[in-house]
Amino acid sequence: MSILVVGTVAFDHVKTPFDERAEVLAGAATYFSIAASFFTPVSIVGVVGDDFTAEHERVFNARGIDLSGLERRAGGKTFRWTGEYGYDFNTRTTLDTQLNVFADFQPRISAAQQDIPYLFLGNAHPSLQRDVRRQSRARLTAMDTMDFWIQGTPDELRETLQCVDVLIINDEEARQLARDPNVIRAAKAILAMGPKRLIVKRGEYGATLFGAGSFFAIPGFPQESVADPTGAGDTFAGGVLGYLAATGSGLDEESLRKAMIYGSVMASFTIEAFGTERLLALTRDEINDRYRQFKSMTYFDSIEHSF
Amino acid sequence: MSILVVGTVAFDHVKTPFDERAEVLAGAATYFSIAASFFTPVSIVGVVGDDFTAEHERVFNARGIDLSGLERRAGGKTFRWTGEYGYDFNTRTTLDTQLNVFADFQPRISAAQQDIPYLFLGNAHPSLQRDVRRQSRARLTAMDTMDFWIQGTPDELRETLQCVDVLIINDEEARQLARDPNVIRAAKAILAMGPKRLIVKRGEYGATLFGAGSFFAIPGFPQESVADPTGAGDTFAGGVLGYLAATGSGLDEESLRKAMIYGSVMASFTIEAFGTERLLALTRDEINDRYRQFKSMTYFDSIEHSF
Repeated sequence: MSILVVGTVAFDHVKTPFDERAEVLAGAATYFSIAASFFTPVSIVGVVGDDFTAEHERVFNARGIDLSGLERRAGGKTFRWTGEYGYDFNTRTTLDTQLNVFADFQPRISAAQQDIPYLFLGNAHPSLQRDVRRQSRARLTAMDTMDFWIQGTPDELRETLQCVDVLIINDEEARQLARDPNVIRAAKAILAMGPKRLIVKRGEYGATLFGAGSFFAIPGFPQESVADPTGAGDTFAGGVLGYLAATGSGLDEESLRKAMIYGSVMASFTIEAFGTERLLALTRDEINDRYRQFKSMTYFDSIEHSF
Repeated sequence: MSILVVGTVAFDHVKTPFDERAEVLAGAATYFSIAASFFTPVSIVGVVGDDFTAEHERVFNARGIDLSGLERRAGGKTFRWTGEYGYDFNTRTTLDTQLNVFADFQPRISAAQQDIPYLFLGNAHPSLQRDVRRQSRARLTAMDTMDFWIQGTPDELRETLQCVDVLIINDEEARQLARDPNVIRAAKAILAMGPKRLIVKRGEYGATLFGAGSFFAIPGFPQESVADPTGAGDTFAGGVLGYLAATGSGLDEESLRKAMIYGSVMASFTIEAFGTERLLALTRDEINDRYRQFKSMTYFDSIEHSF
């Protein structure tokens, strides 16, 4: 089954301790859709300006991503973000954000896209996310958000949380959203806000899946050389939803756990190069090779010690 | 088989955001030995002052821990540490350290204890650790260290690292020791310094095991209520060595992985109460129950997706 993603298509300027790149094709919808496209067909709802050229379009076309819902704003400029990473890649500072055409974006979902069964609401104003959710008849909806909305529009965010199935955020965001420094307690509080499942991304430490009475945790893939962590979170979400949609899965524990591994696999590739470079060179064999590596690096004998 | 541990027996004064306790029976040798005693016999080499009373001794006796190598210094005071935890328990500040009788401690291992096959060198001056290592004929030696020695006595530490099998440190220490912000690269560099295996403790994020060409990672146990994280690291080491010694294991991957789980299980109990309180109330059934929980919270289907 296919996926509809709403979110930014952007141009990033990324500074790392070792390198710097400008005009990198990026944004939540870009990373998400490319990752998910390895599993299943994806359609993007978003907006770009004149600076989004035929060359950029070819990137999506090459992965079979449907851009019919990508609005082109004549005379407008595409969303732009500039950020810098600390020396161990665990801290990120936003140096500049230009919303441009995204500032007054009002997504309209076409009749055909309203029936796409899986929906991902990329990080955006929670009212925009809810508006899209209401237009869609998706059977499974996941969403992202960030500290800016958690602090700036808490009431709107609470409303949006009530109409999604899965929330995918990082651990700092989970602590902020629940106002609790303990992530386990925070997760319980967040599940009480509406989502049936919560996935907490923890960067190099992996990711955890919370449900009512269930808990699953996976480590991060051991990466010796990180080039650019930008997009890891959206790529993760693309792998998760991609796997679920490809297998027509709902929220059963076994499918979600496998989806988490595929999310982590996709994210682990993204950070190996700037922007979508590594993802675009990826093969399905490489994806399944890394899936097997996740299995072998987490396996241990289940037979208990006889005291 | 049994274990010899050298390290501090101490009295801690612990401040958390929610509580405070003084004169808590603690120290590396205390936490390690109590944890390991659930698996196998343990002997302590250490030193205490007059303030170590018959009541304190009963704690060790109740767990069958051999104190024949615990030197009692008449007129001396036992090692004392005062520390404070930040609101999310991820930061710890040392407010006061009084070495007292530990300041000029020169451990002498008895003839009988020299043949104990498993040895744990608790955090101490690396020359003291090496001195103990030289007196012992243990077949498997593990050690801990800390930033104070990594920065203060780097040459002595390098020498000590060459005569141990397993180094057990936290991730910040690993980064410091290898002078590399990437833990995966840091681990490779540390393995080149001598130890055959490196275990990196990552607090609430779990722990990782590194060997030449092998990698294993486990999440932290989901803890809703942390009372006092002090001793978690030494308890972890006690569980690891305890399991290895109880099963007569060497450095084979399967045994080390199970040992890591038992280490994490023991540490997860320690932090539920102040000092050794929770450990002393623990049962073997509770330990194996939590072992099973680790299995169920990390399990995922190994069958790959057919693209």
